[in-house]
Amino acid sequence: MLEKSQHREQVLGFEIKFRNGMARVGAIHTAHGVFDTPIFMPVGTNGNVKLMRADQLKQIGVGILLGNSYHLAVKPGLDVIKLHGGLHNFMGWKGGILTDSGGFQVFSLRELRQINDDGVLIRSPVDGSKMFLTPELSMEIQKVLGSDIVMVLDHCPGPKESYEEALRSLKRTQQWADRCLKYGVKEGQMLFAIAQGGMYEDLRRLSAQGLSELPFDGFAVGGLSLGEEFEKTLYLTNVTVESLPSEKPRYFMGGGSPELIVHLVEIGVDMFDSVFPTRLARHGTALTFKGRLNIKSAKFKNDLDPIEGECDCVACRNYSRSYVHHLLDRGEVLGGILLTNHNLRFMMRFMERLRQSIFDGTFLDLKKEVVDSYAKSESDKFCYDSADSTLSG
Amino acid sequence: MLEKSQHREQVLGFEIKFRNGMARVGAIHTAHGVFDTPIFMPVGTNGNVKLMRADQLKQIGVGILLGNSYHLAVKPGLDVIKLHGGLHNFMGWKGGILTDSGGFQVFSLRELRQINDDGVLIRSPVDGSKMFLTPELSMEIQKVLGSDIVMVLDHCPGPKESYEEALRSLKRTQQWADRCLKYGVKEGQMLFAIAQGGMYEDLRRLSAQGLSELPFDGFAVGGLSLGEEFEKTLYLTNVTVESLPSEKPRYFMGGGSPELIVHLVEIGVDMFDSVFPTRLARHGTALTFKGRLNIKSAKFKNDLDPIEGECDCVACRNYSRSYVHHLLDRGEVLGGILLTNHNLRFMMRFMERLRQSIFDGTFLDLKKEVVDSYAKSESDKFCYDSADSTLSG
Repeated sequence: MLEKSQHREQVLGFEIKFRNGMARVGAIHTAHGVFDTPIFMPVGTNGNVKLMRADQLKQIGVGILLGNSYHLAVKPGLDVIKLHGGLHNFMGWKGGILTDSGGFQVFSLRELRQINDDGVLIRSPVDGSKMFLTPELSMEIQKVLGSDIVMVLDHCPGPKESYEEALRSLKRTQQWADRCLKYGVKEGQMLFAIAQGGMYEDLRRLSAQGLSELPFDGFAVGGLSLGEEFEKTLYLTNVTVESLPSEKPRYFMGGGSPELIVHLVEIGVDMFDSVFPTRLARHGTALTFKGRLNIKSAKFKNDLDPIEGECDCVACRNYSRSYVHHLLDRGEVLGGILLTNHNLRFMMRFMERLRQSIFDGTFLDLKKEVVDSYAKSESDKFCYDSADSTLSG
Repeated sequence: MLEKSQHREQVLGFEIKFRNGMARVGAIHTAHGVFDTPIFMPVGTNGNVKLMRADQLKQIGVGILLGNSYHLAVKPGLDVIKLHGGLHNFMGWKGGILTDSGGFQVFSLRELRQINDDGVLIRSPVDGSKMFLTPELSMEIQKVLGSDIVMVLDHCPGPKESYEEALRSLKRTQQWADRCLKYGVKEGQMLFAIAQGGMYEDLRRLSAQGLSELPFDGFAVGGLSLGEEFEKTLYLTNVTVESLPSEKPRYFMGGGSPELIVHLVEIGVDMFDSVFPTRLARHGTALTFKGRLNIKSAKFKNDLDPIEGECDCVACRNYSRSYVHHLLDRGEVLGGILLTNHNLRFMMRFMERLRQSIFDGTFLDLKKEVVDSYAKSESDKFCYDSADSTLSG
């Protein structure tokens, strides 16, 4: 699936190295590096992953991160990004960037927008400014941002939308995808479509099939993990994935808990993004292979162990749970910084183990381990991404 | 002045390498390293310098930092610190630590304490717990913390205290210093006394002379930079310093603006601590050799320059003012993190230039440059440490 660019030697695209059942190990080749899949991408809403410098993300092993084109177009504005020569330079990041199209804001800022077939008028919750976002404008914004993977503008329906409304947004999403394709990306960029269809199995198939007929570089599953039941997320993702071309990358948007990832990797999803590990960190929760730990809990007050014994992150190599507990207890932001480092490093280690287990044929053992650990974990309200995820990162 | 410990080869103490007028360049030898003076020590109230990991402080060139023994004794509590084998291990810091005695809290938590000649009853603003802090208890706390430089418990009068009250607190400070000396420090620790005397010249002299008769390893100037006029701070510091032994280190407590430091180095002060650079950073202000820059100002929105061209910190090497401005504008904590890195690195570069200028005989040129630059700077309310400094760090 690797295609040579006409203009230079760079090869962009997706390669599948190994399959095991529906799961696959691959690599995505971008203008800013080649990254193994299944991959997890942290979210950098405002041109930074909260509390993290770009070089620290690299050190942790992050390959691609996600930027929010709508939010960046509002603040700092495209003129500022253009002045820096793109988002990579602006934020000092040399790795891959995937930008969403603003489509998710069509959903998450529902009360601040008016939508028609031409585009969507969004009023910014930040400064009240209005933007009429069309497929073409979204493409232009992402051109200026210079992201490696560009997402089409889509119409994401809410999880409780009627069949008729879900069908309407599906058709609009298909038309907008087509307009994005016609507008085109610049050299070095790849373009991904987003399958919608609400909570309706046949619409999910219809959307995926319709988009599959167009020459996109990859396909995303949108509009899920919005509060619906876990089983429904899995089922509708499976329905979507089955209708997408097997040789193209599949990206599940806005989901990143270990339980969810392990289930979706099993059915052939390659890419994930979520504020989950970073947001949990800021709320004092660590991710480990034994499940979640609420480090704020009094039981860690005298615990000299590192957050996770086998972890090689800067927090685990240098500090005790007791120290991190103390920082969180005193409201010291360093507690959240250390946990953000750990949780992102955990996600990298987790994805590495997933890839390895697919090669090894031990995937089902790992899946059982993850499901068992996370079923035992204290649950909390930050389990899945909620509608405000791209706002609060 | 270097004294060999009886028990091991380690040599603790102060050495003066070069004098130029009253200013001097020296080195303080501690159990955790030898550090050139004049030196600036960042404040780590709750076992961390806000937003900074210990290894990052080392990278920036920080030699000694200040810990607050009262706050640490309340939270996490001495049992937790003891479990870690001391404050160095707890916070992962291999450099020097100076701990204050809790004496400043006698002043800053005035409404929460009752004081008599035996000690002071302090009610914690954090959890309401009460502690009867005596000179002996303060010494014991600092023994458990394992700091390299231990401060005696003092009674710091407010800047508007009457002559009689200032005299009473001076006498109490002298008695308490004597009790601390009798209690003793553990091997590897040095003990500094604190001269008080309020805003009264003769009391300043009396306090300094009285303490100078006792065999302390160093002497601090306490109870200044509490809101009194700049000229008064300088004058009363000078009066104090003139009455202290010339060969011992002199430490001005709680002052760290470049203007103040340059004036005090000129009259022979060797050590400084302040929340000034870190607090300014969190409020969006950068320190440079050309004065302060309020990076939140709209004029930096399109500024591609680094915060300070000649600076080698991680912020200046990787990011534009425009990027930092954007982070601050969006309320992203990374903005404060980058400025904290810069401001602390600035303080290290500033102290290095001060030391060099004393050697070179160019001190007065540097003083003029600093005074001119900082006179031109936008002033703001975070100029000097205020009474709550050890609380909010």
